[in-house]
Amino acid sequence: MYDCIIVGSSVAGISAAINLKIRKKDFLLLGNKDFSPKVQKAELIQNYVGMPDISGCELSGALKEHLEKMKIEITEARVNSIMSLGDYFMLSAGSDVYESKTIILATGVEFSKKIEGEDTFLGRGVSYCATCDGMFYRGKTIAVVGSSKEAEKELWYLAELANTVYYFPLYKAEETAVKQENITIVSERPVKLSGKERVTEIEDKTGKIWNIDGVFFLKDALAPSALLNGLENDGMHIVVDRNMRTNIPGCFACGDCTGRPYQYMKAAGEGNIAAHSVVDFLTN
Amino acid sequence: MYDCIIVGSSVAGISAAINLKIRKKDFLLLGNKDFSPKVQKAELIQNYVGMPDISGCELSGALKEHLEKMKIEITEARVNSIMSLGDYFMLSAGSDVYESKTIILATGVEFSKKIEGEDTFLGRGVSYCATCDGMFYRGKTIAVVGSSKEAEKELWYLAELANTVYYFPLYKAEETAVKQENITIVSERPVKLSGKERVTEIEDKTGKIWNIDGVFFLKDALAPSALLNGLENDGMHIVVDRNMRTNIPGCFACGDCTGRPYQYMKAAGEGNIAAHSVVDFLTN
Repeated sequence: MYDCIIVGSSVAGISAAINLKIRKKDFLLLGNKDFSPKVQKAELIQNYVGMPDISGCELSGALKEHLEKMKIEITEARVNSIMSLGDYFMLSAGSDVYESKTIILATGVEFSKKIEGEDTFLGRGVSYCATCDGMFYRGKTIAVVGSSKEAEKELWYLAELANTVYYFPLYKAEETAVKQENITIVSERPVKLSGKERVTEIEDKTGKIWNIDGVFFLKDALAPSALLNGLENDGMHIVVDRNMRTNIPGCFACGDCTGRPYQYMKAAGEGNIAAHSVVDFLTN
Repeated sequence: MYDCIIVGSSVAGISAAINLKIRKKDFLLLGNKDFSPKVQKAELIQNYVGMPDISGCELSGALKEHLEKMKIEITEARVNSIMSLGDYFMLSAGSDVYESKTIILATGVEFSKKIEGEDTFLGRGVSYCATCDGMFYRGKTIAVVGSSKEAEKELWYLAELANTVYYFPLYKAEETAVKQENITIVSERPVKLSGKERVTEIEDKTGKIWNIDGVFFLKDALAPSALLNGLENDGMHIVVDRNMRTNIPGCFACGDCTGRPYQYMKAAGEGNIAAHSVVDFLTN
């Protein structure tokens, strides 16, 4: 049983981890070893106080150095779901299950809008988690909508199970890198899902219809409501108070997932606060 | 008329200034060119994300470099009071008066507790502002309670006016540096004020009583309630929402003055948010 599991390894999650380490807590930092693609891609950051005019790459380097110095490891895993069990939490990531007294959500924010029908068919052919639901589509025909290159690993996992995969990359995908025998790359944006009981069709921007048995949306950040049942949110962001507490006792949030401004400095500050709140929570 | 005046030049105020500069706002950053004494004194900071294991001196150097690179100047002035005039603010600092559409308070937090009678005699012999009230004590006997070395400049100003000054330093004062003909250094802590209509006595820890006409408390951070009338506070901290808004429209706050944890990272994050809120406020 961990003291805390931090979900997300961008600036907010890292700030929380550094503070939990200083306070000698037993925690797990789940995320991507390359941090967030958003940090990597930033061209010039002018307002990271004390580090004028740094690039996203340089900031990533500084984060990496800080983590190494403090001997903090990032565990690479995509979180499928979290359950609050009153006194503690159960978290499933990949094929593992972890237990923790507290949770810090630093999941970022997803900019891609939902498409028509996405909410309607959630759980009826619409999934956000390849490892959770992939096996239901063995030998079937599916669509996969990938928000970024990060989605490709899961795409290949799904392609091993499904018979036919229509891949809708929402980014500039390298065709040669992605392509496999049963993957068809569709370069038009998907706009609509339809069906009766379950989703059966996905329509692209040109009006072309692709028949499917299911569709996976592989987003950079999971909608918080999809991650943890009953978590209060305003549609796009997790609702927190000034101590970074969510409505679920023991569950805290920080960074872009709590709202604007989407800024590294804000994320770092909120991660710090969230860690302090976790320490207070564990003491009481 | 400025777009914004930032009161306080520690990490929170600097973070706000950097963001207002990027957003091309016309602002004034009031404070101390050496930043806060607290930053300078910090021995080792482990949790400033991206800058592992830096000293307070090194952080100060990084702040200075950042300000220079962005051509942001600190105006050295001690703020006496701020008045909200509905559409804008008037701020008096030293002998100058400034006008601004918005205010960001980044005044830090004062750790020295109030002494018995301090509240009772406020305005009846108790003052927090040498330049505002000094002239009332020409030729009189006063006590001066200084929270840190920063108070000494004002002590000397008061010693020019008053006949006799009892100086109670709450820090390790260098006697030779402070001493002037009419200044008596009292090394015992002051504990109590008494009098009838006005304060007439200050008692030190040993029970010794010093007869006075008035007393100046020169603190590192002014109590926010003393700075701006009607500002909602919980006794020690300014009450803000998640956007760093206070209860007074156009007045924002960030950093230690808004509450715990007292952390550079939190201060930097909140300064960033406050600046973004100012930009939003000016747009609407």
